[in-house]
Amino acid sequence: MLTTIDELRNWSNEQHAAGLTVGFVPTMGALHEGHLSLVKAANERCDKTVVSVFVNPAQFAPNEDFHKYPRPLENDLKVLKSAGAPEVFVPSVAEMYPDGFDASVHIGGVSQPFEGQFRPVHFSGVATVVLKLFNAGQADIAFFGQKDYQQVCVVRKMVSDLNVPVKIAVCPIVREPDGLAMSSRNRYLSAEHRRQAVVLSRSLAEAERLISVKKEQKVKNIVAAMTKTICTDTDFTVDYAAVADPETLRELDIIDPLKHSAVVILLAAKIGTTRLIDNAVIEL
Amino acid sequence: MLTTIDELRNWSNEQHAAGLTVGFVPTMGALHEGHLSLVKAANERCDKTVVSVFVNPAQFAPNEDFHKYPRPLENDLKVLKSAGAPEVFVPSVAEMYPDGFDASVHIGGVSQPFEGQFRPVHFSGVATVVLKLFNAGQADIAFFGQKDYQQVCVVRKMVSDLNVPVKIAVCPIVREPDGLAMSSRNRYLSAEHRRQAVVLSRSLAEAERLISVKKEQKVKNIVAAMTKTICTDTDFTVDYAAVADPETLRELDIIDPLKHSAVVILLAAKIGTTRLIDNAVIEL
Repeated sequence: MLTTIDELRNWSNEQHAAGLTVGFVPTMGALHEGHLSLVKAANERCDKTVVSVFVNPAQFAPNEDFHKYPRPLENDLKVLKSAGAPEVFVPSVAEMYPDGFDASVHIGGVSQPFEGQFRPVHFSGVATVVLKLFNAGQADIAFFGQKDYQQVCVVRKMVSDLNVPVKIAVCPIVREPDGLAMSSRNRYLSAEHRRQAVVLSRSLAEAERLISVKKEQKVKNIVAAMTKTICTDTDFTVDYAAVADPETLRELDIIDPLKHSAVVILLAAKIGTTRLIDNAVIEL
Repeated sequence: MLTTIDELRNWSNEQHAAGLTVGFVPTMGALHEGHLSLVKAANERCDKTVVSVFVNPAQFAPNEDFHKYPRPLENDLKVLKSAGAPEVFVPSVAEMYPDGFDASVHIGGVSQPFEGQFRPVHFSGVATVVLKLFNAGQADIAFFGQKDYQQVCVVRKMVSDLNVPVKIAVCPIVREPDGLAMSSRNRYLSAEHRRQAVVLSRSLAEAERLISVKKEQKVKNIVAAMTKTICTDTDFTVDYAAVADPETLRELDIIDPLKHSAVVILLAAKIGTTRLIDNAVIEL
């Protein structure tokens, strides 16, 4: 297990010196099948894989769940061992943000709507830590889950705008048998709320049916149907449900197949004190 | 001559693949002996040197001299040819900041006082472009002039905080025979103002004498003496003259040799429409 940035950098340099490619999977731990699909993809596409486990304080606002975020490190290490035993990087907060740390990376555009409205400091914290990890890890390919769709857009934009020498690979959302997108935050849910949480993926399926089968073009009708699906007989409130351009994340009012070859449906909803997000890309 | 980021990256990768080290000298062109001392240092310490010539719009405020900044590219290329003929990277503004570009890097602390007070967007623009150049050029060592002392502090802090894999080398200020620090902006000066500009380095020498010989500890006395030297019988106005910790750039009121092994004297002054900076590090 690597715990310092120098150890990670040396490890990566050694792999490259041996002519091997390095895949990088940044995580906040509390690993589930979604993360393991990233490890699997990295193992398939790269000679060596390193998984970082770091709950990044910079991407949580003071009122968010940084302190209660699950940190089952021992179990995470066990799970990784049976998932091809990648190298693991587990830095302390002091290693990543030493006394006097005072840098931040801001990505405009794609980081502003949706999560950016509800979590104003979030993506700057994400961009900063991901850039640090990329710089330290010097990987050839970094693997992210589509589950955090907007995060992927922000990371891609950062890599492009700041000329970061890494390729970004995106892996599909992994879902529970009933359709709930896997998330470390699902473990916050009570049994009853877990049962209700199926409405999120169901609302995406409903939206997809409206767009692909019913050829519904008015986003407000789609959002109304999604909101109804999510909120009827549940304890959910919707933070946002929207249809957007899959690259720029500009919100759409009308889905025009002549203008777009695909759209992304994005949603965030709260139940009790838990906030969940999900999304689906629909080819037109 | 390289003009695209891909060309620069490929060139750098080729050098590294051949087992060669790469030195990088970022400049805004209008090269003078100060720049050439950086090229010389890079040639001495690295197998290959690349010099970038790019007048970076992001580090100029709208009221500053971006448009009138000198761009004698042909002469710069000639000068470089006779200075060891390093590789040259001359990107366009559109190559560095394509449509939709929307990223910025902010370094707190060291970027806030002095130049940060007078040029609020300056260091964010510097940090952003330098990070892009570092990412694109993947050099082993980057060379900066001590002339832009605070810039060096900002770049060092960025490299440290964001874990950028490059070493920073700093070369001494190169001065004209009368003591004026070399600067591309010196060419803005009329003959009369050029003659007067000697007071800047003279004020630093005066400060050094007060500190090292007279053992003056009160910064306000040192600043008063510097201001008198700079403003008596000249057209200069002083933006700031200060004594600071050489690393944190925290301004000092008292020079205490028990607390500091060195201090930096920083000054900025305006004459006509031209703004000049200079500095000196004094070992205690």
